[in-house]
Amino acid sequence: MKIVAAKKILKINDQLAAENRSQFDAAKVRVVNVVGSPGAGKTTLLEALFAQLKSRRRPAVIEGDIAGSIDSERMERIGVPVVQINTDGACHLDANMIANAVKELDLTAVDLLAIENIGNLVCTAGFDLGEHLRIVVLSTAEGDDKAVKYPAIFQGSDALVITKIDLAPHLNFKPERITADMKRLAPDAPVFQVSATRGDGVAPLADWLSQTLAATKPLN
Amino acid sequence: MKIVAAKKILKINDQLAAENRSQFDAAKVRVVNVVGSPGAGKTTLLEALFAQLKSRRRPAVIEGDIAGSIDSERMERIGVPVVQINTDGACHLDANMIANAVKELDLTAVDLLAIENIGNLVCTAGFDLGEHLRIVVLSTAEGDDKAVKYPAIFQGSDALVITKIDLAPHLNFKPERITADMKRLAPDAPVFQVSATRGDGVAPLADWLSQTLAATKPLN
Repeated sequence: MKIVAAKKILKINDQLAAENRSQFDAAKVRVVNVVGSPGAGKTTLLEALFAQLKSRRRPAVIEGDIAGSIDSERMERIGVPVVQINTDGACHLDANMIANAVKELDLTAVDLLAIENIGNLVCTAGFDLGEHLRIVVLSTAEGDDKAVKYPAIFQGSDALVITKIDLAPHLNFKPERITADMKRLAPDAPVFQVSATRGDGVAPLADWLSQTLAATKPLN
Repeated sequence: MKIVAAKKILKINDQLAAENRSQFDAAKVRVVNVVGSPGAGKTTLLEALFAQLKSRRRPAVIEGDIAGSIDSERMERIGVPVVQINTDGACHLDANMIANAVKELDLTAVDLLAIENIGNLVCTAGFDLGEHLRIVVLSTAEGDDKAVKYPAIFQGSDALVITKIDLAPHLNFKPERITADMKRLAPDAPVFQVSATRGDGVAPLADWLSQTLAATKPLN
């Protein structure tokens, strides 16, 4: 694990994001930007996904946090190369932070780079990091009304992963409600229901992610 | 319910917050700013608190959301006067939005004004709204590591309310871990454990809130 301090953004984010994507394409690295609330279960989902994908893909991860390195330590424990970004207060990652973090990775040894963004359903929506796919993660415990309240993040995502589905019996969470809202906001985005701790639903998500990333053409 | 559009901030936030607080003090209205992640259970907690406090206090609420009026409709259903603010993308309320929203309320008919902020553990931390107390709400489903990851919001709060404690048996959530982190970040802030849907722990929180707000001296 290496710590990269967030630096002042000196270039326009979108231009830097395009440069990041060119670099990823040239290195044949597929990149997924994982967004969601604090505690949605992003890290646990990545742990489960990497376990599924390890025979097919060589993963690495960039962990974004306001402070601390708890998630990076979890990734180190499962043997996934990780770079920690501490934003020191900023509520989202940006393309410049990613460009700096990527310098710490050996891209020739990576096929699949996951970027775990800051826990935030708002700020992360507007910042392209240079990824090929963006996945929004929502836990059943957050409630089925979140797409109405935070439409932009759902609208701009390529898939919705509903996590902690094992808690649904204890909650008043209707998957069909958030699925209908997602269909309206992002008609082409599939919706997955997952319990990452139990492993339920992880395989179909891993297959979709693997196939979709493989089929993704360079965007620049 | 009335809709107040978020307007461009024209004055410095802290100055406006002080003006808000003066106005609240003059009207003998006590104000609490409720912050937390999307889906932490802020609205459900307020519903439970208002039910407890109704014989002692005349409540009103300002609901902050990026979009929609789901929470305001819930407040209308329980007969609590409510003003909805839609920030149209902004990730926190600010003092100017509150100043505008308060114009829609009859403060002579209100003792306790709750402001439900945008679901966000980052952006809301830096903006004084003119409140007397700030409460941070964290659900057990979010995990017990959130104070390490998002220290500013915990550090600046007057109490931590752990919600959805009924889910704890199904989760790997250690209340003592987040309580210890809170103790370190905000030594004087009490920690409450609540299940708002079941009603567990709401009465002690309501008592503390009522007593603490009554004892709060005008701050300006």
